[in-house]
Amino acid sequence: MSVRIYGKNSCQEILNVKKPILKAYLMENTNIDFKHVLERKKVEIEVLSKSDFKSFFQGNHQGIVFEIDDYETFDLDDFLEDVDLNNNPLLIMLDGITDVHNFGAIIRTCEAGGVAGIIIPKNRSVKIGGVAAKTSAGAIEHMKIIEVTNLRNTLEKLKKLGFWTIGTSLDAKESYTDIFTDKPICVVIGSEGKGISRLIKETVDFNVKIEMAGKTNSLNASVSAGIIIFDILRKKRMM
Amino acid sequence: MSVRIYGKNSCQEILNVKKPILKAYLMENTNIDFKHVLERKKVEIEVLSKSDFKSFFQGNHQGIVFEIDDYETFDLDDFLEDVDLNNNPLLIMLDGITDVHNFGAIIRTCEAGGVAGIIIPKNRSVKIGGVAAKTSAGAIEHMKIIEVTNLRNTLEKLKKLGFWTIGTSLDAKESYTDIFTDKPICVVIGSEGKGISRLIKETVDFNVKIEMAGKTNSLNASVSAGIIIFDILRKKRMM
Repeated sequence: MSVRIYGKNSCQEILNVKKPILKAYLMENTNIDFKHVLERKKVEIEVLSKSDFKSFFQGNHQGIVFEIDDYETFDLDDFLEDVDLNNNPLLIMLDGITDVHNFGAIIRTCEAGGVAGIIIPKNRSVKIGGVAAKTSAGAIEHMKIIEVTNLRNTLEKLKKLGFWTIGTSLDAKESYTDIFTDKPICVVIGSEGKGISRLIKETVDFNVKIEMAGKTNSLNASVSAGIIIFDILRKKRMM
Repeated sequence: MSVRIYGKNSCQEILNVKKPILKAYLMENTNIDFKHVLERKKVEIEVLSKSDFKSFFQGNHQGIVFEIDDYETFDLDDFLEDVDLNNNPLLIMLDGITDVHNFGAIIRTCEAGGVAGIIIPKNRSVKIGGVAAKTSAGAIEHMKIIEVTNLRNTLEKLKKLGFWTIGTSLDAKESYTDIFTDKPICVVIGSEGKGISRLIKETVDFNVKIEMAGKTNSLNASVSAGIIIFDILRKKRMM
């Protein structure tokens, strides 16, 4: 299976990380610099007229689309083999996030915040496709995505390995600012509507909330993730 | 002028804040609860067939669209008259944000973070329309938007009133965690691509950066805003 990557920034990131490009689609009279680079790399290029391009590719393509191999995901055990637990890595687990834009935005935030990997459930989950890649603004190329069959079992396994497992919930008593950072950490982020599931809430070591000061008291999932991740970063810098 | 509000959550928020509804469009056989409420409020309702609805209203409308009066914006002086500077209000100024989705996401984050008002430039700026309202997830109903003719003059005026004015910039020396919270504050957020303008960078009292730990080192503007706003909230709670 292959994935299509839309737009200049995302395509540039594919070139930056030297990922193989199966095929490049260019809109005529645009992206000349890209064309030269692709020709030098001997990538198969198809130049389409403006009207053909727009009928083939919907959305914000900026006249350039790359076809690449599907994003590779990791198995938990393989991922853990490569991680040094002494560095107190931070993992983010997504529970119930189904919107691909949200997923891409979370990948971007996690990458900028130094998250070691994102854990998603194998079924009933978001797919890692072109939309998530584009919304991640290229960050997907640097982020390890771990697919697991069961979130609860994964949390139990991480606990045994010495991880703090932390859920996020509007009705939690403790604050996200109470998270310890002297251990490996796995923070579970839920969907905006439903939050994390009851089973996960009961499985984690503890749950935290983000205290808000408005009337709507609702944050986008990637903003919630950003607030928690960067507070952990802040505390780690102080250590 | 009027604005069209799309989708159940955003329309529900219009009802919650008791905003006058000029007209309601419903897709046939959907949103029966809304229909009853609207009939009770004697709102003009137009029921459209599924195909008509979809041809009239693009995007994620969920079969319900309200037409309401344009969002009111505030004049700086009028806004400041209603604000108690002894409470050390936090203002967010947007410099160069043109994407309406980003604008809506920032409004949502600001509202949840207790921001007193958002300052935008009168020209060359985002418009407060249906898309921003929808992306704000109803938060726009509770947020004061202040339109000013000149960002720089506004910063000078705020300084004279005792505000700390703070820019955000990737090349700043100081960290967002160094922001003092014992005074009124105005934080300027720039666009993702260009950041804040040189003139604004030179006008503010100081500039701060968000230290990142990844390879792409780029955050969505609403995520950046969230990290800064909630760190200020955190410090205020500790005072």
